[in-house]
Amino acid sequence: MKAARFYDRGDIRIEDIPEPVVAPGTVGVKVAWCGICGTDLHEFMEGPIFIPPCGHPHPISGESAPITMGHEFSGVVYAVGEGVDDIEIGQHVVVEPYIIADDVPTSVGDHYHLSKDMNFIGLGGHGGGLSEKIAVKRRWVHPIANHIPLDQAALIEPLSVGHHAFVRSGAQAGDVALIGGAGPIGLLLGAILKAKGLTIIMTELSAKRKEKALSSGVADYVLDPSEVDVVDAVKKLTQDKGADVAFECSSVNKVLDQLVDAIKPTGVIVIVSIWSHPASVNVHSVVMKELDVRGTIAYCNDHQETIKLVEAGKIDLEPFITQRIGLNDLISKGFETLIHNNESAVKIIVSPDLN
Amino acid sequence: MKAARFYDRGDIRIEDIPEPVVAPGTVGVKVAWCGICGTDLHEFMEGPIFIPPCGHPHPISGESAPITMGHEFSGVVYAVGEGVDDIEIGQHVVVEPYIIADDVPTSVGDHYHLSKDMNFIGLGGHGGGLSEKIAVKRRWVHPIANHIPLDQAALIEPLSVGHHAFVRSGAQAGDVALIGGAGPIGLLLGAILKAKGLTIIMTELSAKRKEKALSSGVADYVLDPSEVDVVDAVKKLTQDKGADVAFECSSVNKVLDQLVDAIKPTGVIVIVSIWSHPASVNVHSVVMKELDVRGTIAYCNDHQETIKLVEAGKIDLEPFITQRIGLNDLISKGFETLIHNNESAVKIIVSPDLN
Repeated sequence: MKAARFYDRGDIRIEDIPEPVVAPGTVGVKVAWCGICGTDLHEFMEGPIFIPPCGHPHPISGESAPITMGHEFSGVVYAVGEGVDDIEIGQHVVVEPYIIADDVPTSVGDHYHLSKDMNFIGLGGHGGGLSEKIAVKRRWVHPIANHIPLDQAALIEPLSVGHHAFVRSGAQAGDVALIGGAGPIGLLLGAILKAKGLTIIMTELSAKRKEKALSSGVADYVLDPSEVDVVDAVKKLTQDKGADVAFECSSVNKVLDQLVDAIKPTGVIVIVSIWSHPASVNVHSVVMKELDVRGTIAYCNDHQETIKLVEAGKIDLEPFITQRIGLNDLISKGFETLIHNNESAVKIIVSPDLN
Repeated sequence: MKAARFYDRGDIRIEDIPEPVVAPGTVGVKVAWCGICGTDLHEFMEGPIFIPPCGHPHPISGESAPITMGHEFSGVVYAVGEGVDDIEIGQHVVVEPYIIADDVPTSVGDHYHLSKDMNFIGLGGHGGGLSEKIAVKRRWVHPIANHIPLDQAALIEPLSVGHHAFVRSGAQAGDVALIGGAGPIGLLLGAILKAKGLTIIMTELSAKRKEKALSSGVADYVLDPSEVDVVDAVKKLTQDKGADVAFECSSVNKVLDQLVDAIKPTGVIVIVSIWSHPASVNVHSVVMKELDVRGTIAYCNDHQETIKLVEAGKIDLEPFITQRIGLNDLISKGFETLIHNNESAVKIIVSPDLN
């Protein structure tokens, strides 16, 4: 079968590899669509980061480069392994793409996403969604209603990242959220918050992203820091109170500073983006306003609720799909668009069946 | 009566001023002892900061320099104003030294300490504890059992700062707390945490402060960052888990970095100290470990529980009193010790009756 395999920085190859073995306890999934994540791009441009380099096998998966990529995917069950009796062939599914040690508990309240040596399917081994088929441990396979289009379902993984950030924030319906940055994660997080009944203010410089934030129905207000004083504008929109909760989705220090200034006393700021360097934080304001600055990473028992929101029609994922390509075009059309035309792209999704 | 009055930076005078009027709704307190706070020293060396400069009256108190200083004090009720019928002459009391607008609610759950233009008695006006007498609004007067020595009672105010930091942290009995810095607030916070059943690890460079952290019974372990790798040592003491909760009490960036590295995933770091510059924060770790970094300032309905802990004998404040001086010696013996011999001083307390 066809698969996109990471060999080294700048070296991803579409190759023919054997089909996966659907071992006991696993589910065979025929991949429908797989999104390209910013993490995939980082691996291509600056990696290997999450990917275990050739000769350095991951302690749980035992695999190292070449590694099949892709962790944001949907598909249809084509086989079930021995002992799997609660899912049937033909079921539409998404995957919570974790590689986690067998002895880590994964119930509600367990922080399995922070466990030792945690990695992701499609980065750390165990196959990937940028291929035709994959066998996944039953625990990580989530059935979805068949009425959800499989292309939109490929976005449930990054949407779950937004759901987890929402949970971390403790935000409530009726709160005003300030989101710094309208990239893919900022937008999908915004969609979650909107579905949860919050008012959404987004800050963004890019014209195309500002337009998407409004046309997708996510943002109630979009503020351009090059045009307005963000802190003043947020104060005006909130009767001088400040935002109840804020989300840093840009890795830009100035954006973080604005969130600290524009949030109310006792407010919560969630850092959603990945920073490659330390941030300068105005801790004086953190102290004097008694702010909470919280980190959030990935998801942890968030897929179930995220899927419910999509099944109930509370989130329409179609506006966030900006390109559909075939697996053979992963580099030439997928990564190249993200490198050279990043502002117009939200989610590029890849199908192994498309030519 | 005698009072220490702040005129300007470096200019604090012991003067004779009129006795306060015990107006309706207020309580007349004969001051017994008043501690010198780091904030007082900052006002003397670098101020005015909290103190409204001459000609710039505070919006709530209407006062400006010269201002009577002192906000950490105990005393005995000598008069009660009209309408005050729940406190008697002779009652021992401490004061929660707030200047807060009359329309701000102050019940449990109200964040009155973060309200607009909040300031402190002894800094923003309304008299101060570095004088013979003061009249205080009934709301801010807290009776204490007469068996608590009045000199120790002067430390209940900074102890309440520690109690508030404990509340902000969400720490539980049995948790391991890492406190960065064994200055006065680090020690008093440690005393609260110890009374609440936590295990205490403190980091400190100063030999005298290390000794005090141990001899006072506050610290279970003291780590000197010049002698040991703090992160390794904390891991060893916690079976590789990391501290459950950490408190930054030094305003030193390297200490904050160590707390981030030595705390467990999902841990809470409370910033207790006041920073005059932004901090560099390893947000990558905040994200990947899903840490909470929380600010805490002063107190808010913390005096009641703090007083109970002292009344019950769960905290002995005597070890933290390192010098007793008369009001006339405030500058020559008080501030000068703090400036030149800061490491050996925890709390210097001042009496208007001592010569």
